[in-house]
Amino acid sequence: MNGLGIGLIGTGYMGKCHALAWNAVAPVFGDVARPHLAVLAESSQDLAERKARELGFSRATGDWRSLVTDPAVDVVSITTPNAFHPDMAIAALEAGKHVWCEKPMATRLSDAERMLAAARASGKVAALGYNYIQNPIIGLIRRLLKEGEIGEVNHVRFEMDEDFMANPDDLFYWKSEASSGHGALDDFGVHALSLIWTMFGGVRRVCGHMAKPYADRPVQGGGRRAVETFDIATTLIELENGASGVIALNRSAWGRKGRIFMQLFGSKGTIVYDQERMNEVQLYTTDLSKETQGFRTILTSPLHPPYDKFIPAPGHGLGFNELKIIECRALIGRINGEATTLIDFEDGIRIERTVDAMARSAHEGRWIEIAAGAAAVAA
Amino acid sequence: MNGLGIGLIGTGYMGKCHALAWNAVAPVFGDVARPHLAVLAESSQDLAERKARELGFSRATGDWRSLVTDPAVDVVSITTPNAFHPDMAIAALEAGKHVWCEKPMATRLSDAERMLAAARASGKVAALGYNYIQNPIIGLIRRLLKEGEIGEVNHVRFEMDEDFMANPDDLFYWKSEASSGHGALDDFGVHALSLIWTMFGGVRRVCGHMAKPYADRPVQGGGRRAVETFDIATTLIELENGASGVIALNRSAWGRKGRIFMQLFGSKGTIVYDQERMNEVQLYTTDLSKETQGFRTILTSPLHPPYDKFIPAPGHGLGFNELKIIECRALIGRINGEATTLIDFEDGIRIERTVDAMARSAHEGRWIEIAAGAAAVAA
Amino acid sequence: MNGLGIGLIGTGYMGKCHALAWNAVAPVFGDVARPHLAVLAESSQDLAERKARELGFSRATGDWRSLVTDPAVDVVSITTPNAFHPDMAIAALEAGKHVWCEKPMATRLSDAERMLAAARASGKVAALGYNYIQNPIIGLIRRLLKEGEIGEVNHVRFEMDEDFMANPDDLFYWKSEASSGHGALDDFGVHALSLIWTMFGGVRRVCGHMAKPYADRPVQGGGRRAVETFDIATTLIELENGASGVIALNRSAWGRKGRIFMQLFGSKGTIVYDQERMNEVQLYTTDLSKETQGFRTILTSPLHPPYDKFIPAPGHGLGFNELKIIECRALIGRINGEATTLIDFEDGIRIERTVDAMARSAHEGRWIEIAAGAAAVAA
Amino acid sequence: MNGLGIGLIGTGYMGKCHALAWNAVAPVFGDVARPHLAVLAESSQDLAERKARELGFSRATGDWRSLVTDPAVDVVSITTPNAFHPDMAIAALEAGKHVWCEKPMATRLSDAERMLAAARASGKVAALGYNYIQNPIIGLIRRLLKEGEIGEVNHVRFEMDEDFMANPDDLFYWKSEASSGHGALDDFGVHALSLIWTMFGGVRRVCGHMAKPYADRPVQGGGRRAVETFDIATTLIELENGASGVIALNRSAWGRKGRIFMQLFGSKGTIVYDQERMNEVQLYTTDLSKETQGFRTILTSPLHPPYDKFIPAPGHGLGFNELKIIECRALIGRINGEATTLIDFEDGIRIERTVDAMARSAHEGRWIEIAAGAAAVAA
Repeated sequence: MNGLGIGLIGTGYMGKCHALAWNAVAPVFGDVARPHLAVLAESSQDLAERKARELGFSRATGDWRSLVTDPAVDVVSITTPNAFHPDMAIAALEAGKHVWCEKPMATRLSDAERMLAAARASGKVAALGYNYIQNPIIGLIRRLLKEGEIGEVNHVRFEMDEDFMANPDDLFYWKSEASSGHGALDDFGVHALSLIWTMFGGVRRVCGHMAKPYADRPVQGGGRRAVETFDIATTLIELENGASGVIALNRSAWGRKGRIFMQLFGSKGTIVYDQERMNEVQLYTTDLSKETQGFRTILTSPLHPPYDKFIPAPGHGLGFNELKIIECRALIGRINGEATTLIDFEDGIRIERTVDAMARSAHEGRWIEIAAGAAAVAA
Repeated sequence: MNGLGIGLIGTGYMGKCHALAWNAVAPVFGDVARPHLAVLAESSQDLAERKARELGFSRATGDWRSLVTDPAVDVVSITTPNAFHPDMAIAALEAGKHVWCEKPMATRLSDAERMLAAARASGKVAALGYNYIQNPIIGLIRRLLKEGEIGEVNHVRFEMDEDFMANPDDLFYWKSEASSGHGALDDFGVHALSLIWTMFGGVRRVCGHMAKPYADRPVQGGGRRAVETFDIATTLIELENGASGVIALNRSAWGRKGRIFMQLFGSKGTIVYDQERMNEVQLYTTDLSKETQGFRTILTSPLHPPYDKFIPAPGHGLGFNELKIIECRALIGRINGEATTLIDFEDGIRIERTVDAMARSAHEGRWIEIAAGAAAVAA
Repeated sequence: MNGLGIGLIGTGYMGKCHALAWNAVAPVFGDVARPHLAVLAESSQDLAERKARELGFSRATGDWRSLVTDPAVDVVSITTPNAFHPDMAIAALEAGKHVWCEKPMATRLSDAERMLAAARASGKVAALGYNYIQNPIIGLIRRLLKEGEIGEVNHVRFEMDEDFMANPDDLFYWKSEASSGHGALDDFGVHALSLIWTMFGGVRRVCGHMAKPYADRPVQGGGRRAVETFDIATTLIELENGASGVIALNRSAWGRKGRIFMQLFGSKGTIVYDQERMNEVQLYTTDLSKETQGFRTILTSPLHPPYDKFIPAPGHGLGFNELKIIECRALIGRINGEATTLIDFEDGIRIERTVDAMARSAHEGRWIEIAAGAAAVAA
Repeated sequence: MNGLGIGLIGTGYMGKCHALAWNAVAPVFGDVARPHLAVLAESSQDLAERKARELGFSRATGDWRSLVTDPAVDVVSITTPNAFHPDMAIAALEAGKHVWCEKPMATRLSDAERMLAAARASGKVAALGYNYIQNPIIGLIRRLLKEGEIGEVNHVRFEMDEDFMANPDDLFYWKSEASSGHGALDDFGVHALSLIWTMFGGVRRVCGHMAKPYADRPVQGGGRRAVETFDIATTLIELENGASGVIALNRSAWGRKGRIFMQLFGSKGTIVYDQERMNEVQLYTTDLSKETQGFRTILTSPLHPPYDKFIPAPGHGLGFNELKIIECRALIGRINGEATTLIDFEDGIRIERTVDAMARSAHEGRWIEIAAGAAAVAA
């Protein structure tokens, strides 16, 4: 069995993350052929060659278009800025390659729809990089939900907070420009929705609110410039399954570094998770003696696959980057016809449409229904 | 200096709590005259006499109307079911007594307005039992906010959750009847708002959502009855000071016992508090070296008055009931002309109007402005 | 039924705490006659009178000897400095009064033995103020242990840490004088041992170590004085029931305010408790599915008596001072012939002998066996 | 610059871990030449070939002796059972190879001494696999200690607990045989000591205690066999720097999965760390306003090198296996003459001598001095 041939476009943090995953997936899992790291593309031939040596790729190119048509390449990892995703993904799909593209699909919904059309036409696997859903402990949560461990979920709360926009004295930069998107909604909303999607399915209606903690920011050289994006976004939601909830996002939340806090309330129990402690989950169930009921902290263990592929002992902990290795294995599995957990372009467009509805709802100050699937069929 | 003469109406849990406070306030604080526990009223003379012995009151009566006009009584503690508050409070105020009434003021806003009018006419102190605001660590939070320790607060999240309605198999009882009010909004919303009021002032606009986790409940003897109240309420808010936020309430939240979780995000830091760990607060500030910034857990200590009146050593912990002793001291202080922290009828009506707006907003599915003070002036 | 007549000697923090308990025990529990607060003794008549008014006592005296023989007094609360305990307790017992004496019994073991002899001769209840054992959640732990919820306990770790001696720049004061005792061992060791005693019984052998974090301290007016006591004490232990363990004490532990951390390891589970979060306990049991085993955090609730006597709702929290009210109820119960949880002089002397052995062991650098009960019989 | 040639002996969990590290070290760090994964040795040629494909090695052998003399090999990773370490390490060193050997060095101290002699004679780098010390947050702790952030450390407590021996119903297996070593002391003691060594230096004297939670265990086929090792070991210590402390180890501690809990008490603050939450540390310092002092939770961030080589955003978390990549980089650095943090055979023998003293102390029930360095010089 020969391993897949890999082409990587982009070598920023996510590019490195993809490269690490392609390097590690065979040693970690032991059940897939070692991929062949064929070609790496960067903005210049020089940079590409240096990075290819570092990341273990055989060849290098300054032209991504040659990569996507290279016969040695079976899968194209796309890790460039979001604006480049549509052209690259569509070209790769049209060249008959599988695609592994970082989220979000595109900066405009119409581009994302074109990407989906290309994916459908190609018949190839078109996956998005939503790695939080790959955490084994998130897998445990999905399993607990499916097995009815907390009964029927009737209310959910999702929070995602970081503090990279928290300092009002930081200079104005592109993330405060309207052209970068809505703000917290794009940066964080899609992650929350990816978790909701794989746990509960779609969102039926939303009522959003967006806020700017700082009206303007200092500009290099003096003066101030008005902020155009919303670092805070809070949205009331109703899920398709009938549960109510809220998604609260804040990228100016001092002290929060990678918090994704979720609370899932069910008729028989509650699940609480915090991404800053990504190797544990809190579970409350009602099947214990009343005197000793309490939230229990479950540490990831080999009983929560595929943690066992990494470490044979419980409680030792996976890292954020290692989720990408799991995602990589899910992608290979999907290519091989396995039903793995993965956000593909079909799912991704649902997520991005929901974000779009959240933003419109906030601007218009009213509830908006999300047309489930309709747009996708029309596209 | 003679102590105040106290009349207590009602001896359920809150009645007991008031009695304990009146018994303890002088020993704890040492700076107020020991109150004279004059008269206790209950529904029957027998019960009143038994409770008077237990709780340390000199006399007992089965007729609350005689209590509110008793010359030995200076302050009337009202701890009966909410429906009785208006008549009792108004009678006491009209008899020239100070009133200490458990929250909420009334089951109908119009009754609350009448109570406020009586309080204004009497010139007496008319206080409400919002004891969460009396926690010394909440006092520390107020002080930190005032001193700008976390800069300007631009976003807040309040959650209040318990699980007394969480079991879908529990029989239908009055809390599921529409006559009991909206549901979580009355039980919990007022508490969240009392904290917001004493920290930030009023709420400008709200957009609410209410949900029933269980459509119906079993009835004694068989069959099921439709639930009429909303155990879950989630509301987007904008404060008068410009901050955005959300208030999420759930009285069917398995595993939560007395959780009031608040997150206050500012331009220079963040404060996080959980009532289930009421003797600590989390503070993140940006004035430390970047390498060692983190949320710090501050335990209540004698440096956070009036904890020092209870215990001379830090970290030993106050209990929930002891907050009532602090509230009692605040009431005595207010009677003596001190500017203590206390929710009086003027503040209370603001809180109840906001709850009312939240409920209407949820029913109408739209944002509602809260007429700051207007209604009060008209009343 | 007439309530007990109470005499209180001393009105420092613990005196206030006793007074609060005597004031509150009837309202809280509702099943004991309201005590009559008869006489209060202080060092001067003036002080005594002021304090009597504040704390609710009928009469005041500057002479404690008149208090212990006063016919109106049934129980004497002794809350003076430890050196006074022997004379007061013995006089009270000889006068036929019950005694409630703050821990430790005495500063010298020989005095404690005399106190025990007086208690035996009197036939009265002679109780010590070890209030940590009265926490309802500690009661839950005792119950879990007894019911075998964590199997047979084979290893225990106790830590008690505060930071009142942590600052090396604090002036030398009496706690660093040898006459005050060993140091951490007296301040904290007795508390750890009181918990061990009520959970597991006696200690069989010990091997201790004591350390001085600071060799000397500044003296008022200049210069430094050598520290004579040991702020740190760590002791290996073997319990009479065969379990091994360690007791680690540090009163110069920066950041610890009232930490008593205990870990109880059994053949079927583990219990973890931290006094700084005195309203919760961590329980790990092995009777759950392996995938979801974890430490669960149990909040105190009405199911953990006598929490229900204070608050009808779970998770609202008791305070440190309220443990004294529970201790007071246990004392009244013991006087009435109930088998309540209480450290009496019989138990107390066991604790103090163990502390003595720990100190000798540390000085001699070797294991020391504790003669179980023998010395007591001889005394 | 050519990368180092790597030979790997053993492909169990630690072998896989080494392979992952050799695969990832260049992509992660970007400042070292990509190693050449030259030869892999396993117990049979077949197994070796399968594993070589999986782990990315060029050649395979069933004979480890051919690997250690292979000209393509510069560094030998030894990840076989401990009993094989001496022969393999000595052969590799004698062949002029650098050695990266998993801890402990050997099952007998005399073998470890021979390994040290071989390392000295070779002049090559001889490193041990103590990966806990490589955690960036442990690096932060070392830096805080060095910079005096908590003043002079005067007391330390180390605990290491897991539960793999906790079930008394588990069958007797080799870890309960005396030939496997002392028990918890070998499994865990060396890790605690590696942390102490890199933070504070050596241990001066010890007084240990060892215990068997279960006297015997069931044997396959019926009957029971006496346990010969000690699953629990508790040791009083004095460090060479004068601090006192305790090391408590328990491999039958239900619920603990990978806990290494350390408390470092200093004259100006305290540091607390728990390996089960390996991406955070608790720091208490006294340079803040007294009202707001508290333990602060610092999440690992790019400011704590080399976390930045893995992830550019704070709080996202490293995994346990990734510590091995950091150790691998430290080894390459040491080979290149950098002064990296690494436990080499010189340090390792100090650790193993201390463990030996702890065991003797426990057997003899007395304090034992550790001859600092003397034995090493004599060897």
